[in-house]
Amino acid sequence: MLKAIQNLGSPTTITTATTVGFVAYFYRLKPPHATKTSAFVSNSTSPQSLLSFYSPRTRPTKPLLFLTRKTRSLEPVRAHSTRPESRMDGTSSSSSSVAAQSSGSARKINFCQWCGGQTKHDIPDGEEKTRAICTVCGKIMYQNPKMVVGCLIEHDNKVLLCKRNIQPSYGLWTLPAGYLEIGESAAEGAIRETWEEAHAEVEIVSPFAHLDIPLIGQTYIIFLAKLKKPHFSPGPESLECQLFSLDDIPFDSLAFSSMVVTLKLYIEDVKAGSQKFHYGTINKRPGSSPSDTHAYTLDHHLQS
Amino acid sequence: MLKAIQNLGSPTTITTATTVGFVAYFYRLKPPHATKTSAFVSNSTSPQSLLSFYSPRTRPTKPLLFLTRKTRSLEPVRAHSTRPESRMDGTSSSSSSVAAQSSGSARKINFCQWCGGQTKHDIPDGEEKTRAICTVCGKIMYQNPKMVVGCLIEHDNKVLLCKRNIQPSYGLWTLPAGYLEIGESAAEGAIRETWEEAHAEVEIVSPFAHLDIPLIGQTYIIFLAKLKKPHFSPGPESLECQLFSLDDIPFDSLAFSSMVVTLKLYIEDVKAGSQKFHYGTINKRPGSSPSDTHAYTLDHHLQS
Repeated sequence: MLKAIQNLGSPTTITTATTVGFVAYFYRLKPPHATKTSAFVSNSTSPQSLLSFYSPRTRPTKPLLFLTRKTRSLEPVRAHSTRPESRMDGTSSSSSSVAAQSSGSARKINFCQWCGGQTKHDIPDGEEKTRAICTVCGKIMYQNPKMVVGCLIEHDNKVLLCKRNIQPSYGLWTLPAGYLEIGESAAEGAIRETWEEAHAEVEIVSPFAHLDIPLIGQTYIIFLAKLKKPHFSPGPESLECQLFSLDDIPFDSLAFSSMVVTLKLYIEDVKAGSQKFHYGTINKRPGSSPSDTHAYTLDHHLQS
Repeated sequence: MLKAIQNLGSPTTITTATTVGFVAYFYRLKPPHATKTSAFVSNSTSPQSLLSFYSPRTRPTKPLLFLTRKTRSLEPVRAHSTRPESRMDGTSSSSSSVAAQSSGSARKINFCQWCGGQTKHDIPDGEEKTRAICTVCGKIMYQNPKMVVGCLIEHDNKVLLCKRNIQPSYGLWTLPAGYLEIGESAAEGAIRETWEEAHAEVEIVSPFAHLDIPLIGQTYIIFLAKLKKPHFSPGPESLECQLFSLDDIPFDSLAFSSMVVTLKLYIEDVKAGSQKFHYGTINKRPGSSPSDTHAYTLDHHLQS
């Protein structure tokens, strides 16, 4: 299960991200020094005007790899969650629009979690990005992307999917996956999530995909796995669990773009008769509907 | 560069982690449902007595995959940092023992970063792990492992290493690597870190390794890369940068176990004439010296 809401940035003129489901409207700048892009579905074109948002604080001689928080920030983006918002933020609200409380933006951190002092938002000495800095104890609140780990379970030439019993994407299908916890490995986390969502005991077969979604601060780590016993049943976060043959995968009813990408790559590998490890970056096509899980590009696609 | 101190847990009787350098003493429980282990260097034996630390709150029917924070916590562990502590916690102290301020443990979070309210540490409804919960606004402070991204740069049958100009592991050699920032992909982050530490412009060739270090809440993502131009020079965090032939890699002077593992796997692949993608978990051998970067096991080693 995905337990935390993750959001990025603070209000900006660059882009408007919605809070509906996983996908969000955003523009993605292609850095000058990024690796070559292999568009998987289609190519997005980043508006040239956005180049002006590269940080003026970036060292002139340094490759401009990404926007700094000083100059690029976003509306809060609501990312994966397998819990209603009322559970995710610890309040009783069940509104699907509740999203801002766990923003990934340093600008959103108002207090020091260690001493309770108020924060200021500035660029620390020797750094280049704006951070939340405690005005009392001086500590810096770093924030980093989170890993979502899951299993693509192969059984009798079929794959196991779970129909979500929770928002966002209630009623849509997903691979069992959720946030990696501190203290567990990615493989352990994927096994745990599979148990929680499908009550299936699995053995990891191999790493399959690493998919970054930079603008919502998430990285999907997906493993190929097999059932240790031919049993599964929906956990509390799933309405049902079902094995699908590759021809019957409900691509129009998948919960997230990351699942669309993962399953398409898997089918390609199966058809090619060659299992690979895939790395790539999922970027939403500008202007596309947030609920359109097919409106993405898979950039920097590399295989091993 | 690695910008944040990461620590795990709160004081406990299970293990004592040191704050010297990257590695720490710890015991690692092997979960009943973990994948099969391929010990890379040697096998560690988890004390049976530690099994009692599995959480009693874990559902009886659920695989016991890992210890919950309710029952397993650690002394603060100081993990990678490429900044002196005086910079990392925003204070003027330069003591190498400063480590507790950015603990990864929910127990260490005393205040809500959104509203400033005091936190309590309890298991939220529907969850199984102790979290820091704001007593004022009710929000839950989730904490998750962080990704460290870096490049293994191949050039003329040599690899590029940087001698660290900062603590921890001052004067020891490392691949250029550091924490992934929100807003960038892992590949972009690895390119950025390589520029910062070696002033080298690189192109990512392929993903190479995903190495979890669960008990310090870190995951290393290493890419194979090549120089776009045959130029490099030490950045401010490096004393020098140098290309090493595989026979000359200074294994006894490497900064971190993760670098030992990565470079050994790479050499094995080169000798085998087959480049692979590696997944694995690095666990410190119980009782070994924290400064012994070779005192580890590589568990759950899988290749694609």
